[in-house]
Amino acid sequence: MASVSAAAAAASTDSATVSSDACAKIIDGKLVAKQIREEIAVEIAKMKDGIGVVPGLAVILVGSRKDSQTYVRNKKKSCEAVGIKSYEVNLPEDSSEDEVLKHIATFNSDPSVHGILVQLPLPHHMNDENILNAVSIEKDVDGFHPLNIGRLAMQGRDPFFVPCTPKGCMELLHRYGVEIKGKRAVVIGRSNIVGMPAALLLQKANATVSIVHSNTKKPEEITRQADIVIAAVGVANLVRGSWIKPGAAIIDVGINPVDDPESPRGYRLVGDVCYEEASKIAGLITPVPGGVGPMTIAMLLSNTLESAKRIHKFK
Amino acid sequence: MASVSAAAAAASTDSATVSSDACAKIIDGKLVAKQIREEIAVEIAKMKDGIGVVPGLAVILVGSRKDSQTYVRNKKKSCEAVGIKSYEVNLPEDSSEDEVLKHIATFNSDPSVHGILVQLPLPHHMNDENILNAVSIEKDVDGFHPLNIGRLAMQGRDPFFVPCTPKGCMELLHRYGVEIKGKRAVVIGRSNIVGMPAALLLQKANATVSIVHSNTKKPEEITRQADIVIAAVGVANLVRGSWIKPGAAIIDVGINPVDDPESPRGYRLVGDVCYEEASKIAGLITPVPGGVGPMTIAMLLSNTLESAKRIHKFK
Repeated sequence: MASVSAAAAAASTDSATVSSDACAKIIDGKLVAKQIREEIAVEIAKMKDGIGVVPGLAVILVGSRKDSQTYVRNKKKSCEAVGIKSYEVNLPEDSSEDEVLKHIATFNSDPSVHGILVQLPLPHHMNDENILNAVSIEKDVDGFHPLNIGRLAMQGRDPFFVPCTPKGCMELLHRYGVEIKGKRAVVIGRSNIVGMPAALLLQKANATVSIVHSNTKKPEEITRQADIVIAAVGVANLVRGSWIKPGAAIIDVGINPVDDPESPRGYRLVGDVCYEEASKIAGLITPVPGGVGPMTIAMLLSNTLESAKRIHKFK
Repeated sequence: MASVSAAAAAASTDSATVSSDACAKIIDGKLVAKQIREEIAVEIAKMKDGIGVVPGLAVILVGSRKDSQTYVRNKKKSCEAVGIKSYEVNLPEDSSEDEVLKHIATFNSDPSVHGILVQLPLPHHMNDENILNAVSIEKDVDGFHPLNIGRLAMQGRDPFFVPCTPKGCMELLHRYGVEIKGKRAVVIGRSNIVGMPAALLLQKANATVSIVHSNTKKPEEITRQADIVIAAVGVANLVRGSWIKPGAAIIDVGINPVDDPESPRGYRLVGDVCYEEASKIAGLITPVPGGVGPMTIAMLLSNTLESAKRIHKFK
């Protein structure tokens, strides 16, 4: 996708308003995500005009977790806004694995569905691995299938889909013109859904990548060598200003609630990076919220469009 | 597998004979590989006694490259020595992809075959990816299938097979008692068959891993931070003594011919690591030849045994 000078311009204006002595440019994920959604809407309109097809995304939700319901509702709304048709299955908490698998099979063979998403976490009595592996590799818009991860890791191979959150991190780096090739990158955290695929993506883009995790000794030393840091570990304010190389690009995936009696809700959300400190040292930084967060759904829409284009050979 | 004090003891004796001022303990891959082959032979004898089954390894060779023929002959000999039954198909250089695929399909459904290996490189008119992907994931003893690589990369998943050469590197570290958890590791090279899976294995063993490659600036700086170095880049003597942290464990996968008028063949084999320099600084080091080399076939035998045990549920 193209780089976006508007985003960068808006960001540099914003940065002055957030903290008077901050020197880092703010990476405005909300703005970038909005631009991407607009680009997707244009592409979908063209596709509809050209071949009479719109992308379809199926979401399977099991149980009635409030947070999952909110996510699914947001996904549905975002789909509608860009012209993706959404399909939804809501199953009770005590459904059997077989019932979920049956719905996956139906969506796998439905030609109007181009992406299938099983909302996590699943109830404890279900085997995540069995269920996620049942999603057709061509419709695995989450990119969590081990075959996709393997292709992501390998040179000369490409995954069908790149997992949404790490894809969003890369997109932010690209749109803000951050050079990756030959740069030192540190990924903090090695989860299957963010840290590990983010490291593979940076590696594929020819960065020299190190992964920092709970067993890493002196994580600050290695992080301080990095031109690019992606923090995805889920520990509030873990990465302090002293961990940051001056001028580095910081992508903060963490969204951690911390007590805040001054907030009406009694808490506020902070990242894995101590923003107050890091923003004085970094060259670019994502805020929390408003950084990586809005990118995840935008990338899900992008993966769904990509899938429909591939299946219908539409360029 | 168990650690081997005999190997370590033998190695420390050897180290004195190789270079008078070398301080590194030599990792004797030849000796370790021999011990592993003996352990495998014992296990196979037990299996044969217990359930009347021996592991079977099928090798498909296309064309008449001298080096490939030598490899295949060595594999066959090694199989026979431990009690693995070997199956071989030799196809002419101008065979079609379909012929190769037909043989793979036959071996996939043959219950006496537990491992299938397609000797690389294949002739240029064939698509490696198509052919390698046709090997049943349960019999992919090379561990090159992207599904295996994906499972290797993911937490909470395990591959059916670990690629032989990187598995051999890890086995050498284990058998020489090198602690991996919490250590800094640098892998030089990121090939699909050695560097990348070696990095994933070190990462799974809780090292803090960095991958150095052709785009890495100042590779010596990051390498010098490593307690463990795996060099697999194919450049003779790339890693100099000054790149090595004192006391580090060095696993040299490279086997590079360099001109040597004093050798009867006119050349000799050297690794990616300048042995003369590195052995004075490292704590442990593999020689070339006689380090990682002999481990690859031993690990292939190990993978074939493992596969037969899994398929026949033999513990």
